[in-house]
Amino acid sequence: MPLDPGRAIANLNELRSLTGDTQGAQRVAWTPAWKKARAWFQEKIRPLPVEHHLDAAGNAWTTLKGRADRALLLGSHLDSVPNGGWLDGSLGVLAGLELLQSIAEDTGGLPPVTVRLVDWADEEGARFGRSLFGSSAFAGTHSIAADRGRTDRDNIRLEDAMKPYGIDIERIGEASVEQQNAAAYLELHIEQGPVLESMQLPLGVVLGTKGVERHAITFHGQEAHSGSTPMHVRRDALAAAAKLALEIRTIASRYPDAVATMGSVKTYPGIVTAVVGRCETTLDMRDLDPIILASMLADARAASERFAAEERCTVDWSKIWSIEPVPFHPQLVDICDAAIRETTGLSHRLPSGPLHDAAEVARAGIPTVMMFVQSLRGLSHNAAEDTRIEHLQLAIQAFNRLAEEAIAWITKQNPPLE
Amino acid sequence: MPLDPGRAIANLNELRSLTGDTQGAQRVAWTPAWKKARAWFQEKIRPLPVEHHLDAAGNAWTTLKGRADRALLLGSHLDSVPNGGWLDGSLGVLAGLELLQSIAEDTGGLPPVTVRLVDWADEEGARFGRSLFGSSAFAGTHSIAADRGRTDRDNIRLEDAMKPYGIDIERIGEASVEQQNAAAYLELHIEQGPVLESMQLPLGVVLGTKGVERHAITFHGQEAHSGSTPMHVRRDALAAAAKLALEIRTIASRYPDAVATMGSVKTYPGIVTAVVGRCETTLDMRDLDPIILASMLADARAASERFAAEERCTVDWSKIWSIEPVPFHPQLVDICDAAIRETTGLSHRLPSGPLHDAAEVARAGIPTVMMFVQSLRGLSHNAAEDTRIEHLQLAIQAFNRLAEEAIAWITKQNPPLE
Repeated sequence: MPLDPGRAIANLNELRSLTGDTQGAQRVAWTPAWKKARAWFQEKIRPLPVEHHLDAAGNAWTTLKGRADRALLLGSHLDSVPNGGWLDGSLGVLAGLELLQSIAEDTGGLPPVTVRLVDWADEEGARFGRSLFGSSAFAGTHSIAADRGRTDRDNIRLEDAMKPYGIDIERIGEASVEQQNAAAYLELHIEQGPVLESMQLPLGVVLGTKGVERHAITFHGQEAHSGSTPMHVRRDALAAAAKLALEIRTIASRYPDAVATMGSVKTYPGIVTAVVGRCETTLDMRDLDPIILASMLADARAASERFAAEERCTVDWSKIWSIEPVPFHPQLVDICDAAIRETTGLSHRLPSGPLHDAAEVARAGIPTVMMFVQSLRGLSHNAAEDTRIEHLQLAIQAFNRLAEEAIAWITKQNPPLE
Repeated sequence: MPLDPGRAIANLNELRSLTGDTQGAQRVAWTPAWKKARAWFQEKIRPLPVEHHLDAAGNAWTTLKGRADRALLLGSHLDSVPNGGWLDGSLGVLAGLELLQSIAEDTGGLPPVTVRLVDWADEEGARFGRSLFGSSAFAGTHSIAADRGRTDRDNIRLEDAMKPYGIDIERIGEASVEQQNAAAYLELHIEQGPVLESMQLPLGVVLGTKGVERHAITFHGQEAHSGSTPMHVRRDALAAAAKLALEIRTIASRYPDAVATMGSVKTYPGIVTAVVGRCETTLDMRDLDPIILASMLADARAASERFAAEERCTVDWSKIWSIEPVPFHPQLVDICDAAIRETTGLSHRLPSGPLHDAAEVARAGIPTVMMFVQSLRGLSHNAAEDTRIEHLQLAIQAFNRLAEEAIAWITKQNPPLE
């Protein structure tokens, strides 16, 4: 049976009915709804000539053995945030299932290379605050120490929540054995942003995931009475923070794809009758180019110090988290670009602001690329998340073409021993 | 016995020991420590030829009858904020006591006009959030309806807290009978700001209390993902608020004594990875000139709308509270200015940013003026509040001179019938 995008879309709808409600998708990792989604998936692959198992970190691998051991990996995640969208993650898994089905059928169950579909465990980190859990264990970038103490809202520990799923936190690093023979990794995902829609393009090829610099920045001034303190003697911590809130936009706007966000501002004492004595802010900066990202960070830091001095305040910085940019494989980017153009006529290359499992796979040294399909109004992580049906169909067609070309690319690199 | 500023300062220290602790003054109105302070005060006046009573709002009146019924009023408040300073309020009451003592002694118990000292009830509003309680009842500007529902942290109602002090909330308006024969009102207070200290002046004459415009201003933009949303499509509510935080300073700086403060900023959802969708701010603007204050407010409103439009946000305003400027009596201002110059050589005229009971008295049509003494580092409402002893001595001397001149001014206006 040839590729049938309609079957994949029907599966997406079936999964939505099974594991969502009027508030959206409820497939939070390490919960019964997630388990139900995975059991449903196992029923779907039962007719196929595949092997299925969970690795040591809970990633679910479905393997169609090929004539060569070298493997093409397809992947995404079935887990969702609470009240999530119907496409975030599940599109990639169910498009992968469709490809696996059609490849198995087209090749009489024996493709030229091995094809593996992975459903990563806990991509969202919604319950324990640790995203990319399974893929980072696979890549070997995961530190157990940092996550041992994680608890959910009910004070249940991550390691205890994993046990009923057969996962021993001490052994999650063993998931790295799944890297064996991996020759390329492909991931289809909704964009979760407004770029493709604004360009009226259904599909784009992802250049990589942006590096992130995430910092807490606090300005210290002097609390003072709003009525008795003349303007010129104030040391207003909010004024310094306001200048920075505006300046980071100027800094980011120097580069085509850079973003900078002040997402949180807290004022102390924070009352209507007091000049702000302390102002706590957060900064999140992203770019695909590590040199640009470092330059933006340096500019923001210098600006914060200049504004603090102007307002006779002081400023201190504390790193919350950072990750370097992860560029995808240049040849696979070209192949993906061509697959999109052949399917829709037009393509666009864009970086991803949000992180994805693909970034962890690329960090493990496996040639990787992602394809984005347009998101309506850029919305994600809520029930309003959506993509036009015709765009989903195009996405599955283009992704299938990408997989075919990737198999050819792998085969050319490692021709089968005759 | 002549005026003895040292005796007043000794009384201030005695009251501090009796009703304060290491955290500061604890004379919160409608609490046992406040009652204790008032009982202590009553012991102090026992040797004097005076009449003492509480009015219907709990204001404590101490009257030294003179040859004329026309009365000079001296006043301030014994109540404090929790962990308050040793001078805020009590300086005025105990300087007034010192004047009452010396006038009684100097005139054989019969001054040319009646002299009355008032300890206003609940100036601070620390427990129930209603400042100037007693003086506004006296002035007839107090609305019972608005305060009937007030409760403290323990959910005790204002009207129930007042009952043990003999106050019936239905009858507080009857305090206005105390206006009878009032010819002038004088109040000595610490500045609670840094102006006199910055000019190296011990004393200043207060031109009036500034009007206050207090508003909640909320900007509405669009919450968006910090990673996937390009800078140029954002509708960042924080950016609009940051522009306003800076612009209000420009607006206030056009006028010599105006102040404008953004004291609180709240961001929603307020997380590091989201563009701010809603930003709630507060604005507090003050000036002595009602035309300037109205102009500042109009400028701030226009700026907020301009910034909202620039950021493709919307903005709404909601009034928290406002009060008109209250100018003091021009002739008494001149008399006070002269009394300060005769005592210290130099005077300065300044408006008061904080409100005072004197504003309510002036609103009742009684000729009023206040004298400020320097506050160290502009601090008040905490245990670090302080004033140099030599400045307190000068203040009591100058205040006494002001009272003498005010008595002469009253007498000249209404010569005694011979």
